[in-house]
Formats: sequence, C-alpha cells, structure tokens
Amino acid sequence: MITHECFTSDPWCIRECGLDLEVLAQTESIFALSNGHIGLRGNLDEGEPVGIPGTYLNGFYELRPLPYAEGGYGYPESGQALINVTNGKLLRLLVDDEPFDIRYGTLHNHERVLDLRAGTLQREVEWESPAGQRVKVSSTRLVSFTQRAVAAISFEVEAVGAAARVVVQSELVANEPLAAPTGDPRVAEALRSPLVAEDDAARDPGRVVLVHHTAGSGLRMAAAMDHLVEAPQKVDVSAETSPDIGRVTVTTVLAPGERLRIVKFLAYGWSGVRSRQALRDQVAAALTAASYTGWEGLIEEQRAYLDAFWDDALIEVEGDPTVEQAARFALFQMLQASARAERRAIPAKGLTGQGYDGHAFWDSETFVLPVLIYTAPEVAAHELRWRHSTLPIARQRARALGLAGAAFPWRTIAGAECSGYWPAGTAAFHINADIAAAVLWYMEATEDEAFMREAGLELLVETARLWRSLGHHDRTGQFRISGVTGPDEYSALQNNNVYTNLMAQQNLSAAADAVQHHEAEAQALGVDQEEAASWRDAARDMFIPYDPELGVHPQADGYTTLEVWDFEATRPDQYPLFLHFPYFDLYRKQVLKQADLVLAMQLRGDAFTFEEKQRNFAYYEPLTVRDSSLSAATQGVLAAEVGQLDLAYDYLRETALLDLGDLHDNTRNGLHLAALAGVWSLLVAGCGGMRCQQGQIGFAPRVPPGLVRLAFRVRFRGRQLQVEVTSGEARYELRSGPPLDLLHHGQRFTLSERTPMVLAIPPLPPMVRPSQPKGREPLHVRPGPEGTSYPS
Amino acid sequence: MITHECFTSDPWCIRECGLDLEVLAQTESIFALSNGHIGLRGNLDEGEPVGIPGTYLNGFYELRPLPYAEGGYGYPESGQALINVTNGKLLRLLVDDEPFDIRYGTLHNHERVLDLRAGTLQREVEWESPAGQRVKVSSTRLVSFTQRAVAAISFEVEAVGAAARVVVQSELVANEPLAAPTGDPRVAEALRSPLVAEDDAARDPGRVVLVHHTAGSGLRMAAAMDHLVEAPQKVDVSAETSPDIGRVTVTTVLAPGERLRIVKFLAYGWSGVRSRQALRDQVAAALTAASYTGWEGLIEEQRAYLDAFWDDALIEVEGDPTVEQAARFALFQMLQASARAERRAIPAKGLTGQGYDGHAFWDSETFVLPVLIYTAPEVAAHELRWRHSTLPIARQRARALGLAGAAFPWRTIAGAECSGYWPAGTAAFHINADIAAAVLWYMEATEDEAFMREAGLELLVETARLWRSLGHHDRTGQFRISGVTGPDEYSALQNNNVYTNLMAQQNLSAAADAVQHHEAEAQALGVDQEEAASWRDAARDMFIPYDPELGVHPQADGYTTLEVWDFEATRPDQYPLFLHFPYFDLYRKQVLKQADLVLAMQLRGDAFTFEEKQRNFAYYEPLTVRDSSLSAATQGVLAAEVGQLDLAYDYLRETALLDLGDLHDNTRNGLHLAALAGVWSLLVAGCGGMRCQQGQIGFAPRVPPGLVRLAFRVRFRGRQLQVEVTSGEARYELRSGPPLDLLHHGQRFTLSERTPMVLAIPPLPPMVRPSQPKGREPLHVRPGPEGTSYPS
Repeated sequence: MITHECFTSDPWCIRECGLDLEVLAQTESIFALSNGHIGLRGNLDEGEPVGIPGTYLNGFYELRPLPYAEGGYGYPESGQALINVTNGKLLRLLVDDEPFDIRYGTLHNHERVLDLRAGTLQREVEWESPAGQRVKVSSTRLVSFTQRAVAAISFEVEAVGAAARVVVQSELVANEPLAAPTGDPRVAEALRSPLVAEDDAARDPGRVVLVHHTAGSGLRMAAAMDHLVEAPQKVDVSAETSPDIGRVTVTTVLAPGERLRIVKFLAYGWSGVRSRQALRDQVAAALTAASYTGWEGLIEEQRAYLDAFWDDALIEVEGDPTVEQAARFALFQMLQASARAERRAIPAKGLTGQGYDGHAFWDSETFVLPVLIYTAPEVAAHELRWRHSTLPIARQRARALGLAGAAFPWRTIAGAECSGYWPAGTAAFHINADIAAAVLWYMEATEDEAFMREAGLELLVETARLWRSLGHHDRTGQFRISGVTGPDEYSALQNNNVYTNLMAQQNLSAAADAVQHHEAEAQALGVDQEEAASWRDAARDMFIPYDPELGVHPQADGYTTLEVWDFEATRPDQYPLFLHFPYFDLYRKQVLKQADLVLAMQLRGDAFTFEEKQRNFAYYEPLTVRDSSLSAATQGVLAAEVGQLDLAYDYLRETALLDLGDLHDNTRNGLHLAALAGVWSLLVAGCGGMRCQQGQIGFAPRVPPGLVRLAFRVRFRGRQLQVEVTSGEARYELRSGPPLDLLHHGQRFTLSERTPMVLAIPPLPPMVRPSQPKGREPLHVRPGPEGTSYPS
Repeated sequence: MITHECFTSDPWCIRECGLDLEVLAQTESIFALSNGHIGLRGNLDEGEPVGIPGTYLNGFYELRPLPYAEGGYGYPESGQALINVTNGKLLRLLVDDEPFDIRYGTLHNHERVLDLRAGTLQREVEWESPAGQRVKVSSTRLVSFTQRAVAAISFEVEAVGAAARVVVQSELVANEPLAAPTGDPRVAEALRSPLVAEDDAARDPGRVVLVHHTAGSGLRMAAAMDHLVEAPQKVDVSAETSPDIGRVTVTTVLAPGERLRIVKFLAYGWSGVRSRQALRDQVAAALTAASYTGWEGLIEEQRAYLDAFWDDALIEVEGDPTVEQAARFALFQMLQASARAERRAIPAKGLTGQGYDGHAFWDSETFVLPVLIYTAPEVAAHELRWRHSTLPIARQRARALGLAGAAFPWRTIAGAECSGYWPAGTAAFHINADIAAAVLWYMEATEDEAFMREAGLELLVETARLWRSLGHHDRTGQFRISGVTGPDEYSALQNNNVYTNLMAQQNLSAAADAVQHHEAEAQALGVDQEEAASWRDAARDMFIPYDPELGVHPQADGYTTLEVWDFEATRPDQYPLFLHFPYFDLYRKQVLKQADLVLAMQLRGDAFTFEEKQRNFAYYEPLTVRDSSLSAATQGVLAAEVGQLDLAYDYLRETALLDLGDLHDNTRNGLHLAALAGVWSLLVAGCGGMRCQQGQIGFAPRVPPGLVRLAFRVRFRGRQLQVEVTSGEARYELRSGPPLDLLHHGQRFTLSERTPMVLAIPPLPPMVRPSQPKGREPLHVRPGPEGTSYPS
C-alpha cells in the first residue's frame, strides 16, 4: 500500500514530492508513459535504483512453455509473454567521476510530476555527490501520441556552487536483467534474455540503432536514438555499440549555474514479417521525423492531442479532489493504453508492467471500452478491429473445442489462448458475448456502419454461432448453457450462469438483428434466414434460473443451495482467499470474488425489475469479497442504481485509490486498467446513471452525499453532451450536434444545442444499507484533514 | 491389441508359443512375477530385446516435480513415482563368443509358461547362433510368496549338436536406461538415473551386493545375489562390481547334450530409516535363508502357498475355457500384487509396470479388496492397515483443504496426494467413503474385531468427520455435498453426486454404529455422543437427487438436463474421448467414461428398488462409453442383476480379455488390477449374484446362456463356502465352519457342513437388451472355432 502522503491532490497532475524507495516499483507503474504502442515504465533516468525496469512494445512477445502436471486435450502448450525490450530511457550521469545515484550522497530535493494535460513526466532533482559537488538534474519525458513510433527525453544538468565535469551516457540496452518471473526454471530460461541480437550500428554524432529478434515467437524489433546536445562550453559526443548496448557519451565541464541539455529522440518499431533492413530504416525515418518536429514541436503536438481529448472527456468532481484527480488519472491511463494501439490489444495492465504476462482479457471490452466508446470512440474501434483480426485463430480454437463460430481466448497477446487453467480460462466463454456486447455499445454510440460491415457483423455472427453450438434445448424446450464459468472466479463450470446466459441471449438476438439489416454482408458470411432464426429461437428460449423461495436470481443453477462461506472464521490476512484456500473449497460455496449476477444487472438491466435488482443486490453484497479489482466499480454502479448512494460513494473512493493507493498490493506489476475504467463508470454510469439500450441513451443522476457537483461529457452519435449534477437537479447541455432524445430518470425529453435543460432529481426513500462480508467493507479512504487523502 | 493366437487356453497356465516382438512389452506385463513386495516384469533373461525393463519394490519411489501453468493454493508440488530399481533378472549368455540374442541367428523354438499353481515363469528356447552353434536354454523364475525378500532363477544351457564354450554373466544393474516417461524435461531428469550408488561389494564365489539411495525421496535399497553352479566340466566363477553393476561370470565348456545349470538367488530390501550397513546385512541374511531353503525348497513352498490359495479361491467356468483361464489369471495377479505387500499399497497396476507412476487409487478398495476379502482376507487387512498407517498425512491434507477428519489422496504411493489435476483428483472425495466401505465389507466378511479396534474404527471415524465437514444442511434441512467429482471422470465438480452421497451416507451411519459398539476406543479418538449423532443426522438427511419426469436418478444435480453427447458424430478413432475432446466439452454433456450411478446401484443396492435399477440401468447404458477399464465389470454385474444375462456375458468376456487381449492398448505399462478383479466380480457378484448387506450374505445366481456351469468358493466368517450354478439350479455347500444363514434369490435358508443344498433358479421374463453408444457395444470376443479365443 502507498501510505506516504506525497502525492498531492493536484487536479491535473500526479505530483510526488520526495522519493520513497519502498514504493519505487509502484510509482514506476503510476508514472508510466505510453501511447498504446510504446510503453515506458517510470524508471529513473539513470537506471538505478529500480523497482522493475520496463520498456514495452504492444504485441511484442516471446513464447513461454505452459507446463501441466497432468495434460489434457486442447490445453495450450505455450503462452505468449510480453517482454521487456530495449531500454532507451537510460541517461546515466557522472559528476566528477561519481555516478549520479540517489542512494549515495545527499538528495536535497526530488519531485516527479505526471502532467495529464501535457502528457509528460517531469522530474526535478537537486543532489549533492558524496564528494560534495551539487547538481540540479531535470528531465522531461514523453511518449508521443502524435508520432506513434517516437518517445523523447529532455535532460538537463546544472552545476550548483562549483564547476563540475559532467559525463552523460545515453544508452539503448537490450536484455536487461530481471528478477525471475516465476519459479519454473524453463519459463525463466525462455524469458531471461529474450532478445537475439541482429544488428547494431552507430553513426556520429549520436545516432545509434539496435536490431533484435525473439527466438521463439520470431518477431523482430528495432530501437534507435538520436541526440541534440546544447552545452555552454566545449562538449565531446561519441557513440559506440555492441550487440546489446548502444551508447552515446556526452562530456563537458559546467561552471556554476551553467547547464548541459540533451534532447534524446527514441524510435521503436517491430514486425513479424519485415526484414532487418526494413525495420532499421523504419526507425531511422521515425527518428528523422521526430528531429524535424523538434522537442518543442513534440511537446506542442502532445498538448494539442490531449486538449482535444480532455475537451471530449471532461470530468469534474466538486467536493472530493482526490476522486477528481483519480478520475482524470484513470482517463489519461486508459488513453495511454489504447490511443495508438491500432489493431493491437489493450492489455489488462496497458503497457505499464508485465503483470498477467501482458495479456488482454475481457477487461478490455467489458470495462475499458465502455469508457473509450463515449470519450474516444475511434480508439475503441481499433480495439474491436483487433479482435476482428484474430478471428481466424478464434475459429480454429472453436473447432478444437468442437464448437461452431469463434471462441476468443480468455487471455492473449496476439490471439492464441494462453490460459493454462481451463476451468477459469477456456470455460469462461462469456468473453465472446462480452466482445459482442462491446460491438453493440460501440454501434449504439457511433452508428459507424463502415465498422459494422467490415468487422462488427462478423464478430456478432461468429459469436452467435458459438453460443448456438454451446447451448442446447432441453426436453422442455428451454435453451441451456452448461459447464461454463461466469465472471466470478470463485465459481467455475456452472450450468446456466445468469450473466453468461443473458449476455449470450443479447449476443444471439443482436446477431440475428444485424443479419436482417445487412443481408448482403451476412450472405457473404454464409448466414441464411434459417440460421438467424435458430439464433432468435435460442435467445427466446434462454433459461434464466430464479429462486422463487428467496426471490433472487441464483448466480447459476443451484447456487443458492450451496453452503455460505464462513466469513466469521476468515481472518483478514486470509484475503485474497485464492491465496489461502483451495479452488475446490471456493467453488463449492457461496462466496464471490467479484460481481457476477450484479454485473449482469448492470449490463443487462433490461432483464430485471427494479425490485429484483434491489433484492439481488442485497443478497450478493454480503457474499462478495472483492478479491478482484474489477468488482468495486460494478458493485458501486448497482449500489447507485438501487439507491444506496452512500455505499456507491465508498466504492467510488476505493476504486479511485486502487492504484494510486496500491490497495491490492500489486500495482508494482502494472496498473489495473479495468479498475481505472471503473472510476469513470462509477461516476458516469453510477452517479450519472447513464445507460444506453437499443440506441436510447438516458441518465438517472444522483450525487452521493459526499460530493457537491459532478460534471462530465460524453460523445454520442456525433454529438458532444455535457451533464452536470448537483444534489437537487441535473443540467443537460448539448455542446455540438443535432438535437437528441434523452431520458432523465425515465422521463423522455429532447435536448438541442444552445438550450440546456435543468431537471429536478426525484428524492430517494430512506433505505437500509446492505452489509459486506466481515472485514470486506469498502475501504474507508475518506478525505483527510489537509486535503491529502491516501490511506494511512 | 494382442492378436496373435499363441496364448493357448490352458486352464492353469498362460502359455505363449513363439515370440512376437510387436507385443513383447505387453507380454512382459502379463508374465510379470510379484509377491506384492518385489515385482519383476517378464523381461527376457538376457535383457534384450526388451519392451520396458522393470524391477520394482513396493513403496520405493522418487519424487518428481508437478508443474503447473497456473498454480493454485493446495496444489501438490511434487509427486511420487515408482522407479525401476536394480535389475537382478539378468543372465546374459555368450555361446562361442556370440551373445544369445533372439534377434540374431535362428530361433527354433520359444515357449513361455506362467504357471498359476506353481507360481513360476518358465521359458524354453532352442536357438542357433549365427555361426551355427545350437543351444537349448531354459529358465524358471519365481518371486517367493513365502520368503518376502527373495526371488530366484534356475537357468540351464545345453549344447546341441556340437561342443560349445559358454559364458554366463549374471548381473545386478542399477539405473538401466529407460525411454523418457514424459515430455517434461525436468520430470525426465528427476527419474533418469534415480539411484545414487552407496556401496558395492563382491564376495567370491558369486555373491554380490549393491546399495543405492534416491536423491529426492531419501529412500535406501539393497539388492544382492548369490549363485549355485552345476557344470559337467571345469567351470570358472568370478565376481566383480562397480557402483551400478554387479557381475558374476560363469565360464565353462559343454559337450553336446551337456548342461550348465545356475541357480541365482536374489534378495531385495529397502527402508526409509535403516542404515546402509543394516540394509546390506538384511539382504545378505535373506540370501542365506534362500540358499538354505534351496531351489527345490522354494519351489515346494511356492506351490504349497498357492495350493492353499486356490483351495479357498477355486473358480470353475464350464463352457468357456477362455473366461476360466482369465478368471484364474486375474486371481493370481491380484494375489501377486498384494500377498506380501504388508502395509504397503496395492498399486493400480500392481508391480507389473510403471503406468500411473505406480500409484494406488480407489481401485484397491473398491475393486480389488472385494475379491481379496472373500478369497484371502488376511491380505485385504494388510491393505486397509496400510491406509490406516497414512492417516497422519490424510489428516494434514484435510486441514490444508479446510476440512475435518482425514482426506485420503486420489493417487499416491506413500500417502501424499500426487494428483496434479484437482478436478479429477482432490475433488474425487468419494475415495474416502470407498475406503470406509472396504472396512465395512471386510468386517462383515471376517468379524475381525482386532482390526476394527486397531484400524477400522479410526478409518470410519476420520472419514465420517470429513463428510460431516464437507457437506452442509440447506435451508430445507437436507444434507448436501457440493462441488465433488464422482467415479465417472467425464463429469467433475458436481453437486450431490448420487454415488458420493450414498457412499458418504453409508460411511456416516457406519461410523456412528461403530462408535456405539466401541465406546472406549471411540472416546480415545475424541468422539462423543453429540458427534456421532451429527453423523446420523447427516446420513438421515442426505439429499439424493431424483428426476421424477424420467423416473431415473440423475448422476448428480441437473445431470439429466445436460445435452447428450453426439455419439452418432463420434468416430471410432476418437475413443477414448479424453484424448480427442477437451474436458470442458466432456464435463458438460451426458456421456460417461465409466459406471457411476450404476456402480452406486451395485455398492448401495439397498438404496434402489428393482424397478429403479432397471430404469437407471437402461438410462445410463446408452451413455456409457467405457473408456475406463473399470467400467465393463460394473456394468456387467448390474446387467446380471436386472436380468440382462446375455449382456452380462458380453461384458464378462470383454473384461476377461482386457489385459490378455490388450484391449485398451496399454497393457505394456502394466496390468489393470481393477479390471482383473472385475472378472471375478462379474462371475461371483454378477452371475453368482453375491451380495452382503449388514452381515447377511446372499446369492441370486444365474448362468448366462453362453456358459454351462459356474463354480466358485468364498471365505466368509471362518467358513469356506462353495456355490455351483447351472442353468436351472444352484448347489450350495458349506465345506467348513459352523452353519450359516444364506439367501438364494431372496429366499432364506440355512446351510450346514456336509449337507449341500440344491435350489431351483427362478426363470427370467424376456426383456429388451439396452443399447450402448454407437460403436461402444461390448467387444464381441466369443470363442473361436479351434478353442483359441483372442480377438482378431
């Protein structure tokens, strides 16, 4: 947990004053920069001390063996693991022969600032060497949103008090040593030095390129750097390379108050097909373009890109600066993870760490895309087109499993199933309906018919085919889906998981509808009327279990007859439960890792009455331990919907601080993108009550007691819409685009540009707050007395 | 499949004329000799050619890592694997400097005979070397039932036609090279050369000892040999050793018709605690005792031991010599696997191969023990005392799983769980009730109160405690057991598996009863009246699902609502299904690998009406593919019970030929002990209709149309009972012991010594034969025209 009080609640920055080596790895994740293609962890310029070094290229992976004590048919034999590629962040500094290392000498000042509007990470250091020479070091780092292959660093050294001889070694280093990622020696071996050197070349006065490939996955990458050096006195610049190291050395002497400035341009590229020469030239060209733009140009482009984003994605949270800051941080990190991914995945941790081997899960479609669809829909489309590009692999996987259509992987980098535990991997078929749902949401929000014709329809059709073959009609005519795992990972291989069945039902109906509207394209996919009719049949007959005695939906067949977990006997140090109890025990009892039926009520709200939602929420709340970071936001959204505003606010704060406060104690391995998305969801879908069903967008806003005012903007069908909520009323403004029909707490109205509407919010009846399992209440991270707000 | 027609249907022998190298490995399993402590595969004396070399000591294992692609709490990190120990079978022969190797020169005759009454494997060979020298080689091998640590070989060479110089190298060889057992290099590494040399010593004129230990499991073993040499002319005998090889070389010249005879005595011992010196002396003493007894003495003891066994275990099957031979082979192999195991396990493959890593499963208690209990009850008691000796490990395992009592391992050598796939390992909790059931059966058949006090009671108590903590009362007061795997391995993690619940119910009741009858001993185990009452409660409230619409018992909750496997679309080459379809797909459909509910009807027949048995049998028969060798016998027993005698006979022949015909294509890795037990069960419990409930033994005999007469003997409460059945009547004879109440087709009568009873068998109404899945009918291996009977 990050317990120091050094992040200030700046509305547009994450500012760290001082440096706590205990949480260095966590801050490396929080200060990571990325554009969705290149990811740089917030490692210190000088390389050491380091938590976890990290430089990533989206989609660039090595294969690792997946071993099994007892194998089985269809088990994947190898997985894909994101690897740490050539590190171009390094700028080692020597001051009068002493290495600049904050573990030695005296650190007079250390500040880092992640600027959410500038898109930069700045650092200011004042340091005194063990020999007494004082220097100011400052750096600004960016990964360009506008030039996809480019990152850049402006690095300055100033001598303080006395003249100093200064040497800066700017490096590219491949195969940095990492701590072994697992206990399995074969896996460690495969990932220890994943890059095989192919080419290294230096061209004075400061341009170096390294080309490597991976041995197992057969991917090739190139990294290159170039430098601009400004020095007040004579300066020497030399370059040298060896297979895994490129080094440009800058040597000068600084009088007191004088500064050496180095701008380092970095370019990265990778390919599974392009030749060594082609890649080398590609990064050289990117470098040239970056130099042409120049440092100031890159900075300006970056800010312009972000200005446009923030104009669409504005979010204001009056009354809780921590939540406001967290919401903006979350949006920024989601953009970083996706902006230029361009038909690559959005991994669960973005490009901020190697957690989960860099894999993408359902997190992308179910948690991250709903945010991007309403704030940066072009980016959302890229992700769905990436899924579409993996259809051939998903079809193969379906065939291997004896199914029709396409079976998307539970976890992957490039499309192949990488899950080594099928009950919580392959069996989690809901991911297919989750992808289809994201297609629907995207289409409802954008009406992007080109996307539908080129990718969306085929995704809907192939997933519908999967469901049709996965389920069957029983002897009473009900359509059942057996032996699958729903969202809650403390259950597995259930029959008729309500979430799965409802999402599959939506998938089947939507595919049938889409086929009707795109007859020619559907024919090209081999869909005839009979097939579409069979989807409608299955959707209509879908079995949704219900426990009439309790008046609640069981998570799946028989769930409410299972023994309830003994929460009283569970000690706080036994959470997360899966690290302290066998799956055997978790699966057979009523205990939820994360929202399952409650998520179904969010995503398929149309399938439940309000009273069912209230009863179901009250039933599952005391059973859900939130060992998954995905859960709090969903529980919060439903809490808001059923009128539990205070509880919703508690979940909002827990979600907001998940990474900034390292509440799950694993932020070091990368940020939790889905949980970050949850901050926005809790504000917009929770407090804002935003829902979109069959193209009808609506809001049911209510500000929880802890907040004064909430404002947010969404993009919808070519419009920009702003919603502002206070305790008594909501103000709707259409900032651009044609008039739009909206719902406000179920009441329909039409909104036009330049005529905002202010509508009263109906009061809530008093109600009893449901309880959570003992010790698993939302974390009480309410604002502290001095505006600082991190748990202590 | 063994398709050659070279095994003849000798009533008391398995005789092989000729040698088919294609099935060499299979015959090594079939011709294996063992006494339950030492196991020698039927490898050729000269060592090569060889299918799989094998010398085993019961309980002597090495650890192997159990790797997981994704680990989980409570997963075992290492398994135990039976290893191939020092090979003492080797007698290499050189004839005029040419090695005796049947792959070279000319083989004029080759015959091997496993004699089921003598307990020996004899071999007669007439061979002509490439240079034209002809020799007769004969050997007789035994593993002594009476001297547990001893095996012996009598080896003779006779020169034919011309004089021959003959050299025999009699060896002990440790760490013989084996084919890699798995694709996992770490596992292969751990098991490649498992024995670490500690001591090797030779003492002329032919005594050698080797001592080794294992690196991981820390077990120590010693192997020693001594020789008697009889030669007509001058003979040289010399001995030499190196760490992994002991060699005694015998050199002589034979005139035509002259014979060299070598008797090789072998002694084996192992221990986890005894010192090198102690073990070395232990095997030396065993050797000395064997020499003292002499070859003829060992042969006589062996036959006397087996005469006594066959007197108790007589079985005669008129009308089908193949089945008769197979039944005796089966009994012999079960005796070999268990006779001198003495508080070690009875592995699933006995000591005939390394299949399943040499592990014991529920096979021992559920399939093998019922045979031993009625034919060699002293041996059965040893097995149960072995289980009892592992209670401390089973208690630990229960604690690790969060349960009370003891959780016995799904697969093990020394008691620790070695299953690396928990849904079909740890979750198969029924093994605990299976062990308890074996305790009950043993007690009903023997009334062995000393066993009950010393071991049986504690086994019942600790397993009852497990069930009590594993299940729970639901809100309607029913006792439910969720998330467990029953016998059928094509289902997993079911709720209220009928087999499991019925066996647990019996376990709980029996434990409560036993506590009542052994108050003092129960107190010592900490059981009070309240605890026993809670077991009775759970047993009384046990939930047994039933599908009233279909009138059948679902295998588990909801089973009859699952999709039925598409048998029509399944090709013959796709069996066994688990090698061609994912578990995901198998688990979620109605398809059984092996009898589950049908086994419940055999073992808990009291819980079903006759009509329920008929309906259930008819329901499950078309769903059961018998991909497990355990299934045919159970299906056959129930077929006989419900009156499907023709089908029972078909299953009898399939079971009888499972190993002798290599029907599952894996006999090379060892015999299927449970299937062998099934031959006896099908004859005695199936055709004989033998059942024992609450101490009441009864029979409902019926000879299937293919047989003329069936006779068998069983031991029961100090009596020897013989039952003879023909098509119309059954004859009961009490050969020794006090009068006994018996049931004949439900009719009670009293049998006394010297007054046999002949009773008529009620006729069967005609009925419709149920079908099996397409292509999975019982194998039609009816007798061929010339008395040969193996499938072709």
